[in-house]
Amino acid sequence: MSVNIKNNEVGVFALGGLNEVGKNMYGVQFQDEIIIMDSGVMFPEDELLGIDYVIPDYQYLLQNRNKIKAVIISHGHEDHIGGIPFLLREINVPIYAGKLASALIRNKLQERGLLRDAEIHEIDEDSVIRFRKTSVSFYLTTHSIPEAYGIVVKTPPGNIVFTGDYKFDFTPVGKPADLHKMARIGEEGVLLLLGDSTNAEVPTFTNSEKIVGISIRNIIQKEEGRVIFATFASNVSRLQQVVMTAYETGRKIVVFGRSMESSIKTARELGYVDDKGEDIFIESRDINKYPANKILILCTGSQGEPMAALSRIANGTHRQISLQPNDTVIFSSSPIPGNTMSVNRVINQLSEQGAKVIHGKVNNIHTSGHGGQQEQLLMHRLMKPKYFMPVHGEYRMLKIQSELAQMTGIPKDNCFIMSNGDVLALTADSARIAGRFPAQDVYVDGNGIGDIGSIVLKDRKALSEEGLIIVSATIDFAAKQLISGPDIMSRGFIYMRESADLINDIQNKARSIINRGLNESGPNVSERSVRDLLLSQLEPAIYQKTQRNPMIMPILLDINKGVRPHQTKQNEGK
Amino acid sequence: MSVNIKNNEVGVFALGGLNEVGKNMYGVQFQDEIIIMDSGVMFPEDELLGIDYVIPDYQYLLQNRNKIKAVIISHGHEDHIGGIPFLLREINVPIYAGKLASALIRNKLQERGLLRDAEIHEIDEDSVIRFRKTSVSFYLTTHSIPEAYGIVVKTPPGNIVFTGDYKFDFTPVGKPADLHKMARIGEEGVLLLLGDSTNAEVPTFTNSEKIVGISIRNIIQKEEGRVIFATFASNVSRLQQVVMTAYETGRKIVVFGRSMESSIKTARELGYVDDKGEDIFIESRDINKYPANKILILCTGSQGEPMAALSRIANGTHRQISLQPNDTVIFSSSPIPGNTMSVNRVINQLSEQGAKVIHGKVNNIHTSGHGGQQEQLLMHRLMKPKYFMPVHGEYRMLKIQSELAQMTGIPKDNCFIMSNGDVLALTADSARIAGRFPAQDVYVDGNGIGDIGSIVLKDRKALSEEGLIIVSATIDFAAKQLISGPDIMSRGFIYMRESADLINDIQNKARSIINRGLNESGPNVSERSVRDLLLSQLEPAIYQKTQRNPMIMPILLDINKGVRPHQTKQNEGK
Repeated sequence: MSVNIKNNEVGVFALGGLNEVGKNMYGVQFQDEIIIMDSGVMFPEDELLGIDYVIPDYQYLLQNRNKIKAVIISHGHEDHIGGIPFLLREINVPIYAGKLASALIRNKLQERGLLRDAEIHEIDEDSVIRFRKTSVSFYLTTHSIPEAYGIVVKTPPGNIVFTGDYKFDFTPVGKPADLHKMARIGEEGVLLLLGDSTNAEVPTFTNSEKIVGISIRNIIQKEEGRVIFATFASNVSRLQQVVMTAYETGRKIVVFGRSMESSIKTARELGYVDDKGEDIFIESRDINKYPANKILILCTGSQGEPMAALSRIANGTHRQISLQPNDTVIFSSSPIPGNTMSVNRVINQLSEQGAKVIHGKVNNIHTSGHGGQQEQLLMHRLMKPKYFMPVHGEYRMLKIQSELAQMTGIPKDNCFIMSNGDVLALTADSARIAGRFPAQDVYVDGNGIGDIGSIVLKDRKALSEEGLIIVSATIDFAAKQLISGPDIMSRGFIYMRESADLINDIQNKARSIINRGLNESGPNVSERSVRDLLLSQLEPAIYQKTQRNPMIMPILLDINKGVRPHQTKQNEGK
Repeated sequence: MSVNIKNNEVGVFALGGLNEVGKNMYGVQFQDEIIIMDSGVMFPEDELLGIDYVIPDYQYLLQNRNKIKAVIISHGHEDHIGGIPFLLREINVPIYAGKLASALIRNKLQERGLLRDAEIHEIDEDSVIRFRKTSVSFYLTTHSIPEAYGIVVKTPPGNIVFTGDYKFDFTPVGKPADLHKMARIGEEGVLLLLGDSTNAEVPTFTNSEKIVGISIRNIIQKEEGRVIFATFASNVSRLQQVVMTAYETGRKIVVFGRSMESSIKTARELGYVDDKGEDIFIESRDINKYPANKILILCTGSQGEPMAALSRIANGTHRQISLQPNDTVIFSSSPIPGNTMSVNRVINQLSEQGAKVIHGKVNNIHTSGHGGQQEQLLMHRLMKPKYFMPVHGEYRMLKIQSELAQMTGIPKDNCFIMSNGDVLALTADSARIAGRFPAQDVYVDGNGIGDIGSIVLKDRKALSEEGLIIVSATIDFAAKQLISGPDIMSRGFIYMRESADLINDIQNKARSIINRGLNESGPNVSERSVRDLLLSQLEPAIYQKTQRNPMIMPILLDINKGVRPHQTKQNEGK
């Protein structure tokens, strides 16, 4: 199916962000102008073995590269900016982002040597970016990082509003949301609203960051030992609150974890973390110059990430910090689904070593950056859109927000639950699906982008569960004679040293299969025929003995072959 | 450290169940009599790649095999009976279990051909099993399966009470707990209580199974399409409730999933699932003979297990059932930590296909089988033990129940938070740690018990994240000449067909390393020296190009070697 947006229509689509939480990337297309909103990455689920990031498929953008006017960034979180380095490698397009997001993007591009060629424009809530036929403006909203913007794309058929990530925090850290501008945008008329669906399953109104600040202060004030405070490095609002609490309780702050150090540095430079001019940040080597009740350790690892600072402290492998009996560890976070067991493991380890651990909802030490159902309803009431497209969520979340939209009076037929790659085409009074483009997940592993696919992952999974056995032998195929071997090597299968009998059995079985292959295969005996015989007969023999199915890789070298410098076996494969 | 229980002391220990939820196995030892309570398995966490089960290390029992009088089973759940086949392979010891647990154990032993030699005695709440110096009796408690027993071991120093898994369900499905017998046991005197800590973090009183039954009935009554009901096959109380609801709402039941079929069969045979004499269970082939509102599908997969019936229904690969628009799917369960993402995936899939999905706490369609803090406190008040040992839980849970015990007046020094293998030795008025024995996790993979260890798992992990590259070549080591190859094969690394340039680069690099190795290594050039050179130089070259670290396995065959039938390379290692 191809894409067919008519000249009087504005097309709206997602490259990422639908049916998933991550790699947000949305597009608005009017005639020859495409505006991209956000360019995120997604962190892989566990079954994507060894994959570092998942990014959108940029094909559609590459095909339309001359139309792309800008990438507009709503805020500086990884699922909204993390894809920029991968995108810029393919297309050099101007980026428009707030001051903080710009700084974070620059750090990211710098690390990968891509900064020099990038064109980054800093915007604020009053900026208006005008293109020939479309223009982009912003409104300030509240989230867990400063400078979170909603984005308004003005197009001839009507205004497209993307909420970005938001909650309605009436007592936020930093500036409040601009309710009046949102009301004006609604009055002016919204053709289509793209609304954050993350917390569509949560029936309540999300707690204010200030409530969390009060809890943190109450807890830290009472503690008489060191406080180890773990949270997301990207939650700049939380960082500001813990720094303020340290200031008020007279504690010095030591920062551990690369992403935390970098986040604190950037946020301090821009004034989003304010240390009141005092030198409350100290070097880790100076930690013992202060009494325990004057120390606050701010670190990464609130999700139980095994390599993060907190996990290392918990399991005793951190180079600079070891737990003391009076330490209190605060998890100012809630576990992302999939991380619960890792978090529990860290809590157990900390607890076993006598640390007091504070975590969980009961303590009010964390709140979401996304609004619940009541806030999503408020957004619908303010924006009064004609059409609605839920974004930023898994299917069930998209569906619930769509139902919420209908409760505010939007007809069901005006709500579009779409998939990545679907294109919605709108005029001032019509909307239809105008085709779709390929929008698969693209895997990034090391330097490779898109070179890992399902076969490679399937092999990784097989290897991870059963291991492998290599059967190697030198054979004189002309004389039909086994010259040396077969030798058996294994990895991830069994302790070979302790399983000598089993290995001998496998070796004997392999030898008899090879000999049978050499003797019985007639004149056409070849590496391939012997190899196939090994694969088909050794596997069941091993399974019968062990109830395991290791991957078997025969390496049969023909003694008659000389140097064949340019011939390579390329996955002749099972 | 060895174990030293004096003649006037009773020893109490766990082989499994401490600092974990799973593989429960506790022991009481007085002089030459050992009573084992439960013999469970644990299901492996995700990082135990390919492992089927985790069982306790039975070493201590093997060393004391002549002292073991019995294995007493509290109830028929896998984490209490699943280890029996592995234990019985090592030691033939009489099993004492309730009627239902006995049936489940027999099924399990039958499958593995171990039933013939097993000695299984059926007990009930009034049974008393007398040994020479000790005796065992029971009290009825409430859990999520019938015949859940607390176990009382009478020993000369005093009575040891193991709660088993319990909640206080005052309106249970089936018989209520015997509060009066528990009170009598408390009055008679409890030297040591071993208490279930699973829900020690839950501040409330666990909902009754009957509340869940009412919710299920309310939901099913209203539905006009088919109902697909997923729950744990082992939750026999829940099964009985859904069967009763089907009876009351005139629905026929079709059962899908091997463990569900087996559980229903056993429970019906024993009368724990009562179909009121009506033939409400129908064969799957007859499902279309009834209107949708007369069908209830009872199936496995409430934890999102990828191979279970519900997952297959959700992703359209179930052979007999495909979703219909009016279907309602009920998850009568809550996700075990670690399964949240799988469950969410199934919910999304079901929801995308238009099914109505009912899940989550708000609907009151699931309750735990374990008591919360209030119930644990009630148990402490009833039993009034002199000493307390929290069991069945991760460290933080054990710690909290220990604190609860102290709130009822047990001195802190009388509470013992132990690890598997620790031995507590008690007289009527003293308690001390009397040593420890090895109690590591033992991994079961296929037929192999304990033959998978950390090296094998480390290899599996490395293979799963980076894949492997095999470099094979035939070499005339005497003439120092490369005869054929090197050939490159890979698995789980990269698409070889699409990465010909990279593979050629690797091949060329390997060739030059091998030639260098042959030329420069002086007279002692050997397979080992060339191999080591390949490992040390090819890895960084590949990493530089790809930022990946595949496992490299060189296979170098010496053309001068003849058939060496009994020489095998045994993990010469990377």
